[in-house]
Amino acid sequence: MYSWTSDLFPICRSLTGRGLRQTLAYLQGLVPELQIYEVPTGYKAFDWTVPDEWEINNAFIANEAGERIIDFQVNNLHLMSYSEPIDAIMSFAELDEHLYSLPSQADAIPYVTSYYKRRWGFCLTERQRAALRQRPEALYHVKIESRLFAGSLSYGEYVIKGESKQEVLLSTYICHPSMANNELSGPVVAAALVQYIKATPRRYTYRIIFIPETLGSIVYLSKNLEHLQKHVIAGFVLTCLGDNRAYSYLASRYGNTYADKVAKHVLHDIAPDYKAYSFLQRGSDERQFCAPGVDLPVCSIMRSKYGEYPEYHTSLDDMQLISPEGLAGGYNALKQCIDIIENNHIYKAALLCEPQMGARGLYSTISHKGSTDGMHNMMNVLAYADGKNDLLDIADICNIPLVELLQIINILVENSLIFKQETN
Amino acid sequence: MYSWTSDLFPICRSLTGRGLRQTLAYLQGLVPELQIYEVPTGYKAFDWTVPDEWEINNAFIANEAGERIIDFQVNNLHLMSYSEPIDAIMSFAELDEHLYSLPSQADAIPYVTSYYKRRWGFCLTERQRAALRQRPEALYHVKIESRLFAGSLSYGEYVIKGESKQEVLLSTYICHPSMANNELSGPVVAAALVQYIKATPRRYTYRIIFIPETLGSIVYLSKNLEHLQKHVIAGFVLTCLGDNRAYSYLASRYGNTYADKVAKHVLHDIAPDYKAYSFLQRGSDERQFCAPGVDLPVCSIMRSKYGEYPEYHTSLDDMQLISPEGLAGGYNALKQCIDIIENNHIYKAALLCEPQMGARGLYSTISHKGSTDGMHNMMNVLAYADGKNDLLDIADICNIPLVELLQIINILVENSLIFKQETN
Amino acid sequence: MYSWTSDLFPICRSLTGRGLRQTLAYLQGLVPELQIYEVPTGYKAFDWTVPDEWEINNAFIANEAGERIIDFQVNNLHLMSYSEPIDAIMSFAELDEHLYSLPSQADAIPYVTSYYKRRWGFCLTERQRAALRQRPEALYHVKIESRLFAGSLSYGEYVIKGESKQEVLLSTYICHPSMANNELSGPVVAAALVQYIKATPRRYTYRIIFIPETLGSIVYLSKNLEHLQKHVIAGFVLTCLGDNRAYSYLASRYGNTYADKVAKHVLHDIAPDYKAYSFLQRGSDERQFCAPGVDLPVCSIMRSKYGEYPEYHTSLDDMQLISPEGLAGGYNALKQCIDIIENNHIYKAALLCEPQMGARGLYSTISHKGSTDGMHNMMNVLAYADGKNDLLDIADICNIPLVELLQIINILVENSLIFKQETN
Repeated sequence: MYSWTSDLFPICRSLTGRGLRQTLAYLQGLVPELQIYEVPTGYKAFDWTVPDEWEINNAFIANEAGERIIDFQVNNLHLMSYSEPIDAIMSFAELDEHLYSLPSQADAIPYVTSYYKRRWGFCLTERQRAALRQRPEALYHVKIESRLFAGSLSYGEYVIKGESKQEVLLSTYICHPSMANNELSGPVVAAALVQYIKATPRRYTYRIIFIPETLGSIVYLSKNLEHLQKHVIAGFVLTCLGDNRAYSYLASRYGNTYADKVAKHVLHDIAPDYKAYSFLQRGSDERQFCAPGVDLPVCSIMRSKYGEYPEYHTSLDDMQLISPEGLAGGYNALKQCIDIIENNHIYKAALLCEPQMGARGLYSTISHKGSTDGMHNMMNVLAYADGKNDLLDIADICNIPLVELLQIINILVENSLIFKQETN
Repeated sequence: MYSWTSDLFPICRSLTGRGLRQTLAYLQGLVPELQIYEVPTGYKAFDWTVPDEWEINNAFIANEAGERIIDFQVNNLHLMSYSEPIDAIMSFAELDEHLYSLPSQADAIPYVTSYYKRRWGFCLTERQRAALRQRPEALYHVKIESRLFAGSLSYGEYVIKGESKQEVLLSTYICHPSMANNELSGPVVAAALVQYIKATPRRYTYRIIFIPETLGSIVYLSKNLEHLQKHVIAGFVLTCLGDNRAYSYLASRYGNTYADKVAKHVLHDIAPDYKAYSFLQRGSDERQFCAPGVDLPVCSIMRSKYGEYPEYHTSLDDMQLISPEGLAGGYNALKQCIDIIENNHIYKAALLCEPQMGARGLYSTISHKGSTDGMHNMMNVLAYADGKNDLLDIADICNIPLVELLQIINILVENSLIFKQETN
Repeated sequence: MYSWTSDLFPICRSLTGRGLRQTLAYLQGLVPELQIYEVPTGYKAFDWTVPDEWEINNAFIANEAGERIIDFQVNNLHLMSYSEPIDAIMSFAELDEHLYSLPSQADAIPYVTSYYKRRWGFCLTERQRAALRQRPEALYHVKIESRLFAGSLSYGEYVIKGESKQEVLLSTYICHPSMANNELSGPVVAAALVQYIKATPRRYTYRIIFIPETLGSIVYLSKNLEHLQKHVIAGFVLTCLGDNRAYSYLASRYGNTYADKVAKHVLHDIAPDYKAYSFLQRGSDERQFCAPGVDLPVCSIMRSKYGEYPEYHTSLDDMQLISPEGLAGGYNALKQCIDIIENNHIYKAALLCEPQMGARGLYSTISHKGSTDGMHNMMNVLAYADGKNDLLDIADICNIPLVELLQIINILVENSLIFKQETN
């Protein structure tokens, strides 16, 4: 996953355009079944309209000596996304109105966009800007070779059919330029999960979408809302899955969906000190998936959450910030969610009263002080396999890690002591 | 309100009689629409019977020199309310059986009544009583010029019609002699609220009653129970609203009525450290309004609660104990309850997914780090305006003070982003 | 109860056999109505089969000098319960494989059984075993005069008919040899409760059973399940009721039955610092009574809980561990449960609004500061006697100990201020 991220990192993605398509093409290399869709400029989705497509070829600020002092080729974050074209000589004062920097983070280039209003702008470090301020009298050549035109917005989708028509939704976004944790960790973990999911026949159908954030999810919902409302039993927004500093959970609107239940169990098991955020602290596509009237059961599992780490939305969110370990941790958390959803049945005891475990070789035939300790969890699972609790409930009541619980369930099923309840 | 209290303070109110009528007449000066009702002696209300009316003209204890050492004219608390007439010379030992003082509060005249059993008595400070004890051999002239006769019990009522037949009940009492916080703060705040309520057309009907405590509410319920049960959506007992030391809340029987919800929100906003008392610590007319089978949604907002401050039910509960600031605070808390009840609708988002706030000038069209901070509350209100939550729920979920919430609601309604749900 | 325990202590009880029958015969002396049932070897109950009956006549290990160094006559815990017969000379090494001791409790003989697999074994203190280890070369004469044969399993039952067909179940066990807290305290408290229950006509029917643990309850359920599920409203497993160190509560499967509610109230009253254990820490016949599909409302009140005190399941659980005070405390806790269940009606106020307590002599006719303090609880009971709360709810809401609550209820009923609701 880390090497996929390295490959994708240099591409200048935006809400629309060539970088977005290159990214989808690369992902198709990893997931050949990925279907790519294009939605034309002017398409209306609820309150929104797909804007012009943005093409960017080059952009720089040059000084009087012709030296490119701010250059899109050096870092694509230097250009405000969706900047309109310009080619002009101007004073520092004029230029300065189009500059964006972060006084509190002197070495970070901020990430700035203006999708819905025509503007142009350059982003630079506070240190670079301070240098420019030294020479207020200087003139600058500002050039942006961009094009805004009726084109389309692109996204990718892959539906892996399972036994059931009920679906698990995985959504990730592909519209940010060179940033690692808050962008590329999402699609690379999603691609790895696709490979994991499709390797085995599945109980549920999986729908994985690679979309531009916000507008992409709104467009997607405008085309698929009824189907999603009917079929999705749990969904996860895949974002910020790459660094190795924390595990985080962002709740759905009321924090009470099946996805929340699964996510909280997994995080409780793998990182009991994970950070739990309420929907008030949301910031990605759950804003749309959980909107009133949409009401999909979607939450987020993350490593360091967007907005909560200093490098967020700057050039410091780079390949050094994330790591193979960080990505593996994010992947593993979501993989465990899938494993649980696949295995989370309701079981019921097959016999009245406790079974005679000793006769089945499951229990010491000598009873003495302490002899039942090892059986404690198995007997507790039997006691709560009453046809009402699913595995997550049993894990919760009996305080048994899910991995161990699945082993116990297997033994009990093999010995015909519990059986799976039919669900629909 | 403080000057109204000053006017009313000297009047010797009781369960019935002239002082009660004078008080109602004064209130009619403030609220001309106030209707006055009289219920005759012998009237039966549930388990109770209206007793004889009590008329008091004068009362004193004089020493052998003819000096009035305890004098009703000096402080009407000196006389036990409902004392029967007497005119006799007696020893200190005889007199002492009819004296009431508070050993623990040497300078306070206690407030004592005997409505339902014929007695006579004088109340005095422990210090005064100690002086009498110095001369056990002395004789005293005890004179009470009172009359007990078939008369009536008086109360006032004003119903301000609103758009809806649903009612808000404000109940306060007017049966205590010269005490300020635990008596007059209630009726003066009620009178001021009447002036506030009637100044504007109202969504709800308001029913304000000025009654003698306990028996007055029982009589009132005996005449209006069915109507109140059908129409009252929230009610408040107005008492102890005048000092400036605390804010207090006394819950309804189960603490779960609409009145409780409103009161707790208001107090949380204006005085987060307010004191919350359960119904077990009740002491005013909520005892009747919330009785089993009556079950009206009534609670209390107070400043320092009856029974919880040392001056309570003594001559120390005087004009110095209360203050214009104290009364204003009490008035304001109840005014806010009314404002909320008037505005507390259920709203529903008009669009699926987030609206495009930028296009409406409600949101910066540039997205950069931190650019959405100011919008945070507005977006949260949109997320929870799902047709289920009322304003109080949204304030609670989103942790937004109600005043700010109302402003946000207005902006969203003006922009057609949310609409009010019909309620009945 | 302590002297009954002394009488029963020496008997060598087991899952079946003579000691069990002797114990039932002794209990019949205390409870003549006790019916004794026999279930034959081979009887199938759910997953279980009644094994052969075990008869034990004698058992010892003798050294080369013929001295009985481990002797069943000295302490019946020395023999593993259900040991098969043997009469052999063997080396220490051979013998050692059949010895059980507790390295961590050097002076305790452990209690060991092997009901369902043929074995023989001796239990001894770690100190005794260490002495044997001194002479690894020694030979021993091992003799167990036991018999295993098609016989039966015995249990006792007494049903005390009450006004209602609804039942309270008391279950205790009689299958352990000489142990006091974890065995005999249960049946002797049960016998004392029987005498208490049958002394008065009762609202409910009481079913008291004296059974061998685990298999006894499974057999009993196999014969009575449908009846119990239909009629039992609350049940208690009587075990570990004899020492004086703690009060303990073990919850039913979900901790939410009527028995749990009663038990928690009683323990909160008599020992607010009682230890509460969840069903995960179960260990007696609630394992069967609360099994999925059986689902009887059964919990346990104990003194020191099995498994939680060091003397448990060893020879140290003897007559010194328990005491008359300990047994009286255990008896009293269960007696209070019965008293509450008998008296726990739903009451409803007979009048609207507060009644005039003064007119009934229930309240001071003078009202002055503090005069109502003594009435506080009575007025609170009236306020919550609303036809919804049972006595336990009222005790809980009003924080009144149950004994005082019953007194208040009696006064209010006598004064026709509340009346009992019909229940079915």
